[in-house]
Amino acid sequence: MKYPSNIKKNYQNPLTYKNRGMDLEDELNLSNEYYQSIDKALIFKKPTPIGVSKVSYRNQSKIIEKAYFKEPSTLDYNGLYRGKYIEYEAKVTKNKTAFPLQNIHYHQIEHIKKVLNHQGIVFLIIKINDLVYLLKGCDFISYINTHLRKSIPFDYIKNQGYLIKYGYNPPLDYLKIVDNIYFKEDE
Amino acid sequence: MKYPSNIKKNYQNPLTYKNRGMDLEDELNLSNEYYQSIDKALIFKKPTPIGVSKVSYRNQSKIIEKAYFKEPSTLDYNGLYRGKYIEYEAKVTKNKTAFPLQNIHYHQIEHIKKVLNHQGIVFLIIKINDLVYLLKGCDFISYINTHLRKSIPFDYIKNQGYLIKYGYNPPLDYLKIVDNIYFKEDE
Repeated sequence: MKYPSNIKKNYQNPLTYKNRGMDLEDELNLSNEYYQSIDKALIFKKPTPIGVSKVSYRNQSKIIEKAYFKEPSTLDYNGLYRGKYIEYEAKVTKNKTAFPLQNIHYHQIEHIKKVLNHQGIVFLIIKINDLVYLLKGCDFISYINTHLRKSIPFDYIKNQGYLIKYGYNPPLDYLKIVDNIYFKEDE
Repeated sequence: MKYPSNIKKNYQNPLTYKNRGMDLEDELNLSNEYYQSIDKALIFKKPTPIGVSKVSYRNQSKIIEKAYFKEPSTLDYNGLYRGKYIEYEAKVTKNKTAFPLQNIHYHQIEHIKKVLNHQGIVFLIIKINDLVYLLKGCDFISYINTHLRKSIPFDYIKNQGYLIKYGYNPPLDYLKIVDNIYFKEDE
């Protein structure tokens, strides 16, 4: 089994993932690289959408001289797992009691509903109180549809969501949770 | 049925799609917007991956001052159709007799093989001689595995591929072909 060099590097001190200041995005990127390295899933972070307004050419390569970040209308990560379409957004909040909904754009909420309608697997990965939860898209939408609050209480995430435990490699084995909640009936 | 404004605009002169200098990417983007507007599929062009090397802040917004285009390792478009993962690359060649393989990066070829292994729908859309063909990922890989040439002859694309006819709206109804070749047994 071959690991990408950056995963190998982390092997030298595996127990400190959680405390090294690695952010959730890094943890998920490493987990996805690990899944690819063992040919378990093909899941990638989408590039951040940018609008390019000025380019120049230097030594035959195109350099961007001015650009701006666009608001995403889909979720951060998507790909293919066990023959199924999978898409999710990863968010960290420093708020200890609730996940503020301003973290998720309106277009993204609409997109989650559409993915559900088209039978895709869609969820949020939320880091709150240093714990990482997978919250199913349907439970997220269900909360929004039935509450007028501007945030989702930590208790709702704890009760409806699934705790993703930190591990050796992958740092966040979220596909284990996906197996349990989306593929249970197949096994 | 609501159309995005840019699709509506094109309605005024629908027969000229092919000749207005609209490029293949525009034709596919319009087709995907149309599919979304009728809730048929969720397929998006991935943002071009860029590496940002310098940013500044102006009026509370982040401006990219220097960046460069990265080489893609996956394909241009992906999404969800009829519950299945779908991914494809769109390429135009001015060469009249063959499609040069330098148009597809090594990592993309490896990626196509992986998507096939994971039961995703994967293909190329190739515009050659002003005709647009869908070439299945497995036929593309099969050609590469059995030929040492640096291009795929037009005849191979014509015989193994599926012609996508230009239409009113969507301009390129490639999902009709996808229905025929990937979902035939389900109907």
